[in-house]
Amino acid sequence: MISQTVEYALRAIVTIGQHNGQPCTARRISEITKVPAAYLSKLMQGLVRGGLVNSQRGLHGGFVLTKEPRDLTIWDIVDVVEPIKRIEKCPLDIESHGGTLCPLHRRLDTALEKIESIFRQTTVADLLSQPGSVTPLCEAQKAITLDMSRVQSPSENESTKK
Amino acid sequence: MISQTVEYALRAIVTIGQHNGQPCTARRISEITKVPAAYLSKLMQGLVRGGLVNSQRGLHGGFVLTKEPRDLTIWDIVDVVEPIKRIEKCPLDIESHGGTLCPLHRRLDTALEKIESIFRQTTVADLLSQPGSVTPLCEAQKAITLDMSRVQSPSENESTKK
Repeated sequence: MISQTVEYALRAIVTIGQHNGQPCTARRISEITKVPAAYLSKLMQGLVRGGLVNSQRGLHGGFVLTKEPRDLTIWDIVDVVEPIKRIEKCPLDIESHGGTLCPLHRRLDTALEKIESIFRQTTVADLLSQPGSVTPLCEAQKAITLDMSRVQSPSENESTKK
Repeated sequence: MISQTVEYALRAIVTIGQHNGQPCTARRISEITKVPAAYLSKLMQGLVRGGLVNSQRGLHGGFVLTKEPRDLTIWDIVDVVEPIKRIEKCPLDIESHGGTLCPLHRRLDTALEKIESIFRQTTVADLLSQPGSVTPLCEAQKAITLDMSRVQSPSENESTKK
């Protein structure tokens, strides 16, 4: 129900968010999120086109979020990669229904409405840290702490230029 | 988010439910639900295998529900055609998380939990009739009333034997 593309996009955004404004290379995001490099590359293009992420070129280049994590919601991300289409009119085009949904499509739309509500209310900041919870993608967090010099290395930054 | 297969399966089940225990041929379900015949055929095989529907052969053959509409939920149907997988452990297999979900996967699972709850609480009977609402697939309902003799015709029943 939550597609792999949506799951991967959320992992990528959370990873970039965890870097606190420091550009994060495609290779690094791929390592952390376990999203295959080719898949991630397409995904990042979509996130850039959708205005969620900027790609900074150059020696210390990489991807950064265009907004603060507190201003970016799950809904914004889903809406870029795989928009949820609410049911606004009869999908069978039954004319006599007019704008009224039958019980079947009304219930399905109620389910979609719940999802929309949760996704609109959850910001990336909410995903980064919550008291008493484990940290998302935390193996990577450790790596960031240990390997700060590696993050900055020219060879790593090459990967964002591709 | 709600796939075409799920939407089609729900239409088919509602249509059979509207026939009040009278067998409903594949051709008739296809006409009513606007699901292409080949697609419907595969779908019905899955619903029979999943134990939701029985296929009755013979002159007045067709598909019937195995349960009363009040005992069959949207969840039962979705669970046969495209089960919703709740997130029970870290999809990245991060060992240190153990059984604890990070905020990202906890929120995603909360969304899935809401869907599960709505789907479990909604029976096919709820979908067939609700006061003050339009009838699902109602153009078909009219046809059923007008064409009762046609429903029973041998030529129509041929289609269930294939």
